[in-house]
Amino acid sequence: MPDFTVYKGGPSGIVEAITHADPPKGNQVLIKITHSGICGTDEHYKGADMVLGHEGVGIVQQIGEQVKDFKVGDLVGWGYTHKTCGACEECYVGHDQYCENRELYGMHNFHQGSFGSHAIWDASFVFHVPEGIAPEFAAPLMCGGATVFNIIETYNIRPTDRVGVVGVGGLGHLAIQFLAKMGSTVVVFSGTDAKRAEALRLGASEFYATADAKELNIGKPLDHLIVTTNFKANWALLTSLVRPCGSIYPLTVEFGNIDIPAFPVVTRGVTIQGSCVAARSVHNRMLAFAAKHQVKPIIETFPMTKDGVVAGMQKLRDGKMRYRGVLVA
Amino acid sequence: MPDFTVYKGGPSGIVEAITHADPPKGNQVLIKITHSGICGTDEHYKGADMVLGHEGVGIVQQIGEQVKDFKVGDLVGWGYTHKTCGACEECYVGHDQYCENRELYGMHNFHQGSFGSHAIWDASFVFHVPEGIAPEFAAPLMCGGATVFNIIETYNIRPTDRVGVVGVGGLGHLAIQFLAKMGSTVVVFSGTDAKRAEALRLGASEFYATADAKELNIGKPLDHLIVTTNFKANWALLTSLVRPCGSIYPLTVEFGNIDIPAFPVVTRGVTIQGSCVAARSVHNRMLAFAAKHQVKPIIETFPMTKDGVVAGMQKLRDGKMRYRGVLVA
Repeated sequence: MPDFTVYKGGPSGIVEAITHADPPKGNQVLIKITHSGICGTDEHYKGADMVLGHEGVGIVQQIGEQVKDFKVGDLVGWGYTHKTCGACEECYVGHDQYCENRELYGMHNFHQGSFGSHAIWDASFVFHVPEGIAPEFAAPLMCGGATVFNIIETYNIRPTDRVGVVGVGGLGHLAIQFLAKMGSTVVVFSGTDAKRAEALRLGASEFYATADAKELNIGKPLDHLIVTTNFKANWALLTSLVRPCGSIYPLTVEFGNIDIPAFPVVTRGVTIQGSCVAARSVHNRMLAFAAKHQVKPIIETFPMTKDGVVAGMQKLRDGKMRYRGVLVA
Repeated sequence: MPDFTVYKGGPSGIVEAITHADPPKGNQVLIKITHSGICGTDEHYKGADMVLGHEGVGIVQQIGEQVKDFKVGDLVGWGYTHKTCGACEECYVGHDQYCENRELYGMHNFHQGSFGSHAIWDASFVFHVPEGIAPEFAAPLMCGGATVFNIIETYNIRPTDRVGVVGVGGLGHLAIQFLAKMGSTVVVFSGTDAKRAEALRLGASEFYATADAKELNIGKPLDHLIVTTNFKANWALLTSLVRPCGSIYPLTVEFGNIDIPAFPVVTRGVTIQGSCVAARSVHNRMLAFAAKHQVKPIIETFPMTKDGVVAGMQKLRDGKMRYRGVLVA
């Protein structure tokens, strides 16, 4: 077994540590990490004594005696992974990401996470990276891609729907691509016109700059509205864009309130739908769809070193990442 | 044609007015009003020059030449009624209460509403009161009953579900009954213990007093939570009671914000579902279910006079109605 290098949080910033693990046993796989995406959620854990990163990609190096679905040399990925009980109602109905007895798995010891040289996982929480997706592009799909695709797949967004995407960033630029590739009409909202050309190139049908807008005339209202921005959204404005019985999906994991105006939501039967990452079945469908239709993140790369982790997280924090950071081993 | 007496809003309070209408023509019916419920939504219109009331019951007195479904002498009711276009997407899929081209119908002239002696309506917006429901008990079902039943029917609440009801009032005491009669487990939340016995008698399985509660241990979490209270709810506390992928239904028509905590909603896939009154198909199912299972509002009666309207609306405003006011002609 090799020594592991890992990058973890800490009260005074990112820490590089060396650790050692027993060889994989049972259903475990040992993965040599080649790439990891950098996600906004890592920011919440940067002060904690745990390995960061949950958009990992790498090569299987060794497997436990019960592993059936993976072999040494496979290219695999993993996301925001929980231990799930397999026995609660959420697990029964395939919503395993909401397992009632879940434990954050892999973000609290030195053999998991994805900022580092290696990781050991239960094979149940590892995914094959399909042919046709290069590992650096697969990494941001493991959380960012899964997060936006879960809305489409779980809440039955249709190719005939008119779908709004608020924010052209790590999540938004993937949402535009997935929706455009399935034939939906994609209506993009961004603060300024700076990302208009990029959004249209990625598949948007319409683009609106919203800074300072008190109201927006977008013609036909939206069936669905995916809100990927991490600043306080103008919920009154956004709600006015959605048709009766339409749905709004606030995606960012934040700790404040979503200040939804009651009147238009209640009197027009609007749905506010929480959604987080994806069930494993949905995650696999997402990867297959991305491979088939070449949904590809736009990335900036950083070295898988302490300096690389610090620089990548800083750029994301500054709102300057275009559009997803990837650490490369 | 008789003269109409109507009670309408106005800047200095309730106004009694006499008006006159042409006989019903086409698909119209003339109804002699026998009863009208008093609803919190009337409060929003009390300053407006329109006839109040939208929980009407009465006897058909005269019909237009195209009316097929009603005859003179029928006992009928009507609710929060809109003109619907019949041609938009909401109308097509049977969500006619959310018609994109709806006009508030009957709350803006002197021949409609339900606080008065008579009303003229298009027969498409009038419902037969089934046998087995006395008219004074039918009236509060026309808005209050439809509002709570729409959640159950449209969002597929199941007899196997554990359903919370916040507030034992005009809406809550009907929600408890509908849910208990369909076999669901009903968990009631009220400020104090004052209404505990009543809630249990109506069919609640469990009752929790919430005043000053920072957290509540209710055992198994809720599949659905229906929030009927019209004061600022403690959304953080309420959200903590709902299971992953559970749903919360804020019912009161208010003009402020619903301050939903983002983190538990997003990370646990919770749904916040707006819902208002009921489609006509659902309204008819509600009446049939209420008749079959004797879901009966608890009412206080007031005379159908200016003084009665003023007294009834005041009692509701003061939070003292037990549980639904009914004006009797």
